[in-house]
Amino acid sequence: MIINQPEILLIEDSEYEAELTFKALKAKMPAIRYHHLRNGEEALQYLFKEGPCSDRSYSLPLVVILDLDLPKTRGIEVLKVMKSDPRTKSIPVIIVTVSTSEEEMQQAYTLGANSFVIKPMNFLKFSLIIADIANYWLLVNDLPNYTKPGQGGF
Amino acid sequence: MIINQPEILLIEDSEYEAELTFKALKAKMPAIRYHHLRNGEEALQYLFKEGPCSDRSYSLPLVVILDLDLPKTRGIEVLKVMKSDPRTKSIPVIIVTVSTSEEEMQQAYTLGANSFVIKPMNFLKFSLIIADIANYWLLVNDLPNYTKPGQGGF
Repeated sequence: MIINQPEILLIEDSEYEAELTFKALKAKMPAIRYHHLRNGEEALQYLFKEGPCSDRSYSLPLVVILDLDLPKTRGIEVLKVMKSDPRTKSIPVIIVTVSTSEEEMQQAYTLGANSFVIKPMNFLKFSLIIADIANYWLLVNDLPNYTKPGQGGF
Repeated sequence: MIINQPEILLIEDSEYEAELTFKALKAKMPAIRYHHLRNGEEALQYLFKEGPCSDRSYSLPLVVILDLDLPKTRGIEVLKVMKSDPRTKSIPVIIVTVSTSEEEMQQAYTLGANSFVIKPMNFLKFSLIIADIANYWLLVNDLPNYTKPGQGGF
């Protein structure tokens, strides 16, 4: 059985930041499923149903929130693979990172990142930024196979 | 002289919707320059400094808000050209359209649209959606060569 409940995939190695992110996302949209992966290798296996995910059935995520500084396979590599494969190319990828490098930002946009957000260092500002990301990508932006609340219900 | 003041480019054939959009954008960010073009052909000449724009000097826009249903060259063609040319590939393109076609949405994401927003028919909801777009792309999202207010001024 393929699970069709819309899902947000978070690829983030910090447990603390993942927890804060999920809190902000769930407050904005409790009806969505949230999935957390901690490194780039796991993320690619999950997205392409390879390795430990090869015998599983699930829908691809609606949106991916991707940290750049990841163990094993780096975030920029995950982005590159996703945006060059027709199966995952159209999934919005939002980079959320501590990197303030203009070069890295330019590279991410050129590779097809849909959005690039620098993580604020301050806890309150971080929560507010994540709430803005949740609001925009779940309530403002439109996605294939996803009905926003107010457009006819789930 | 190259004008370096950050600019948002709106490609929209409806004068009324352009006016509403600029109102919402300016309310959120008065310090930015806004430029309005009414068809796809003009937009490509402007972006690539061709035809009547060939002898002018200006910086490329920070963000493009693009309608799909445009005269002369259609919006999807503008997107396709922008996202396949290294000069414009990394500029975020936000599709704002009345189209609710899943196929068109999928095509836009596959061609590299950064975001796809269906225009609400209701005037108040339209203004709110534009305010959300302005908030996200000018205050939440980070762009190369652009400093958000609060990150050290312009």
